[in-house]
Amino acid sequence: MRGAVIHAPGDVRFETLDDPKILKPTDAIIRTAVTCVCGSDLWPWRGLDAVDEPRPMGHEYVGFVEEVGRDVTGLRPGQFVVGSFATSDNSCPHCVNGFQSNCLHREFMSTCQAEYVRIPNAAGTLVTSDGVPDERFWPGLLANSDVMGTGWYAADAAEVRPGSTAVVVGDGAVGLCAVIAAKEMGAERIIAMSRHANRQKLALDFGATDIVTERGEEGVARIKELTGGIGADSVLECVGTAESMRQALHSTRPGGNVGFVGVPHDVAIDGQELFFSHVGLRGGPAPVRRYLPDLVERVLTGRIDPGKVFDLTLPLEQVADGYRAMNERRAVKALLKP
Amino acid sequence: MRGAVIHAPGDVRFETLDDPKILKPTDAIIRTAVTCVCGSDLWPWRGLDAVDEPRPMGHEYVGFVEEVGRDVTGLRPGQFVVGSFATSDNSCPHCVNGFQSNCLHREFMSTCQAEYVRIPNAAGTLVTSDGVPDERFWPGLLANSDVMGTGWYAADAAEVRPGSTAVVVGDGAVGLCAVIAAKEMGAERIIAMSRHANRQKLALDFGATDIVTERGEEGVARIKELTGGIGADSVLECVGTAESMRQALHSTRPGGNVGFVGVPHDVAIDGQELFFSHVGLRGGPAPVRRYLPDLVERVLTGRIDPGKVFDLTLPLEQVADGYRAMNERRAVKALLKP
Repeated sequence: MRGAVIHAPGDVRFETLDDPKILKPTDAIIRTAVTCVCGSDLWPWRGLDAVDEPRPMGHEYVGFVEEVGRDVTGLRPGQFVVGSFATSDNSCPHCVNGFQSNCLHREFMSTCQAEYVRIPNAAGTLVTSDGVPDERFWPGLLANSDVMGTGWYAADAAEVRPGSTAVVVGDGAVGLCAVIAAKEMGAERIIAMSRHANRQKLALDFGATDIVTERGEEGVARIKELTGGIGADSVLECVGTAESMRQALHSTRPGGNVGFVGVPHDVAIDGQELFFSHVGLRGGPAPVRRYLPDLVERVLTGRIDPGKVFDLTLPLEQVADGYRAMNERRAVKALLKP
Repeated sequence: MRGAVIHAPGDVRFETLDDPKILKPTDAIIRTAVTCVCGSDLWPWRGLDAVDEPRPMGHEYVGFVEEVGRDVTGLRPGQFVVGSFATSDNSCPHCVNGFQSNCLHREFMSTCQAEYVRIPNAAGTLVTSDGVPDERFWPGLLANSDVMGTGWYAADAAEVRPGSTAVVVGDGAVGLCAVIAAKEMGAERIIAMSRHANRQKLALDFGATDIVTERGEEGVARIKELTGGIGADSVLECVGTAESMRQALHSTRPGGNVGFVGVPHDVAIDGQELFFSHVGLRGGPAPVRRYLPDLVERVLTGRIDPGKVFDLTLPLEQVADGYRAMNERRAVKALLKP
């Protein structure tokens, strides 16, 4: 088969690779229907995460079951499936507690920009749909496997409630999906922080009520101004830098909550400042599996359309162009078709 | 009148002071029924917080209304009252959201180890009871004004739920009251971390089911052992050091919560570690006012008896002995009678 391999920063190639095989009896192999490039894939591409040796890329996927290991129950070849970027047995104590992305048997996906993919913990990870959904739903289902599930967790961790005010920090695909989540959870006011016209437009389309272009302490001041001097009930931090975290914490009212889903890079939180702020904080890799059945339903009924974050569609073999377009901000997110 | 004044580390004197006066129309003056020494009073006494000039001490109190300012509604001289260490108007947006200890008009109490005390924001701060409660309830009501309210907030912020497992880090008066709170909120298992026999006994008396004497990573390992390798649902951090915070975070299961109520001294939280832990975190000066009516009821019906944390009773004029006894751990908490 063929798939993407990163050799060095800026150097992603589409190559012939060994077909994936069942390695454990709990594995399945899927044939990729659609996959994509994630904002986090740009970290190694930009040289900000090390690339010590060539390795496959990609962790988002929907596809067709091709083969299942002998311990995989409830799945059969031909089924259309979607799963999370973090696999889970869906039965360990952490899974039962709803934190499948901390499953005792978790394996992070990392080879999905390819024609075929091995899925560990297949029975606990993959969610099926009745028959094969119309192809127009595939982008939305693909978004569920990471960015929509992650945006949903940001809103959940930030405890968005009906009638509340939510701020979304970050206008990447996750931030845009976080707007969808805040809207679905009933936030009355949704303030998206964005400086890019196309992303602002999508945020408004997804339910944002206000756009703030200021950043840092100016951004905080603007949020305070929009919330009667008090701060927002919920802030969804979808970036992961020290500045975005500070902005999130300072924009939240006492007793409010920050949900943070951008992987923190050089972020330290001062204990005393957090203490006196009364702000609640929860983050992490999103437990997408917890939300998947509900999100699949929302996509297939047309209630949400997170697939709109894909503003570039390429044949899988042009995967390198997808990285380039996203790196240069010519695209929010690139969808890849095998 | 007479009251306690700290002049330098280790030097608390009982002196003649000006009688407090109504300074704002929202003030009240109370005659102290009982007051006490707080663990946090030991910070300046030990020279760990600066003492730049002589100043009064104390922030816990129950008493009798002596005089009210012209804007104080609902209070009249002679009433028996209890209030929080943080005063609040109980009507600003933060108060309405239940975070009265972040009230826009907040003033922290700091002159309560005295015969008379001025209470700012009196109408919003003071909670009355029907008539004068029997004197045996006074210690419990006094505990409500800080340590019991703070322990309750620790349990609330850590989201203790019926049937859950709670760990209490810290065996001071707040930690012991946190055990009471966890018990009242229905925790099935309550693990108190303590090395002192008298405090262990009180923790067990208050509802702790297990005692852990190990600290640091050994303490964490013991908690993991007691929770099937998973960690606790809720951890109540009642100390405020870098070590106790680390211990709390590491003892919590993914998706669990830490409530932290010890004022952090030199505590920095690593963003990436917090991220991958999936632990939720909320702290702060407890919004005692939110809980006071309920806590007063629990004390007066005999349902809880946080007054047991007072294992030393002194005449107010011997206040300095109270500091010494607590500093030397001869007493958990010293009650002072004018």
